[in-house]
Amino acid sequence: MTTLLHLDSSARGDRSLSRALSRAFVEAWLAREPDANVIARDVGRDPPPFLNEAWVAAAFTPEEARTPQHKVELALSDEMIAELAAADVIVMGTPMYNYGMPAQLKSWFDKIIRIGKTFSFDLARGDFPLEPILSGKILVVLSSRGEFGFGPGGVRADMNQLDPHIRTCSHYLGVESIHTIAIDYQEFGDARHKRSVAEAHAAVPGLVEELIAGRRAEAA
Amino acid sequence: MTTLLHLDSSARGDRSLSRALSRAFVEAWLAREPDANVIARDVGRDPPPFLNEAWVAAAFTPEEARTPQHKVELALSDEMIAELAAADVIVMGTPMYNYGMPAQLKSWFDKIIRIGKTFSFDLARGDFPLEPILSGKILVVLSSRGEFGFGPGGVRADMNQLDPHIRTCSHYLGVESIHTIAIDYQEFGDARHKRSVAEAHAAVPGLVEELIAGRRAEAA
Repeated sequence: MTTLLHLDSSARGDRSLSRALSRAFVEAWLAREPDANVIARDVGRDPPPFLNEAWVAAAFTPEEARTPQHKVELALSDEMIAELAAADVIVMGTPMYNYGMPAQLKSWFDKIIRIGKTFSFDLARGDFPLEPILSGKILVVLSSRGEFGFGPGGVRADMNQLDPHIRTCSHYLGVESIHTIAIDYQEFGDARHKRSVAEAHAAVPGLVEELIAGRRAEAA
Repeated sequence: MTTLLHLDSSARGDRSLSRALSRAFVEAWLAREPDANVIARDVGRDPPPFLNEAWVAAAFTPEEARTPQHKVELALSDEMIAELAAADVIVMGTPMYNYGMPAQLKSWFDKIIRIGKTFSFDLARGDFPLEPILSGKILVVLSSRGEFGFGPGGVRADMNQLDPHIRTCSHYLGVESIHTIAIDYQEFGDARHKRSVAEAHAAVPGLVEELIAGRRAEAA
């Protein structure tokens, strides 16, 4: 059985294109694998609070030395890390805001990339002391972008700070393969945008199929 | 007379390396130009709230059609944009968190890159409809990073999502030149780190000198 972590990060509700795409992905998965388990985490609607000094202090205090107040600080982080740890597939709906992650999504990463929980740190490893603790996760990035040309070789490839940043961070979540479907041209509201929305939704069942087949092949 | 916007975004207070560096920069500037005006904005301590649907709706409502509630939503954004508009030099202290901006800093960008205020949008411009409204600003990025090798050609250059993202976003703030001083090796806490802190602080007076000289040459 597969566990999906269905993560949304748009500030918008019903009008969000990335939410519609992540919902379509989860529905397509459930249509193929009805007993899949879905954990929902909506950081768009309920953003994890920004990092503050109390949180940083708690995270860097060894577990056995933590005070009750430290534990309160880390409770949401613990909860979100448990969701991540349980997930086989992270289904990440995200708009591109100002060429990168919404602050909400960055706040999720900042709260779950945590020493001793998602990564280990050991200076005995020399100049590369960090290593992820989790492994084997699949990440599906379902994004929506106002402009276009953000893919490799595109006119705005260098401005795309969303996909490379997600890639860099997700290594520390144990992600080993990333699959992306993106909607473009939202700000243009033209025929290209309509086509992009249609193409993105049309690509969902094939990706679901491919990932389920891959997981079955691995399990066999 | 120069107006500096002194922006800090670390979640840490006294222990923050980027705060110490931005403070040193502002002090060095005031030592050279005592009548400079300094606007302080601390998004590390007081992060701008995350974008939500009400804010987005208010920002996209034409000014003349805004309700009192819309105006309340946009008040902080208006205030921070006014600070930006008044600034000749943005002094940005920022740690690298998880290879990119702190969510706090992204939240500042998300609240000030605003249609009709910092950028104009016109489909008559074709495939490149956005243009900045402000111009001529100097940005000084004073950052602190846990690891090293984030510069061009460095071993972690591809993982640096902080500087390229700031560069991409700051175009829409009217920034026309960017200067960077960074502290490295914080997580190693070794002699390389001590040297990096010392070198970063030692580089401050020269950069201040260069920028003041450039501004005087332009004004002459």
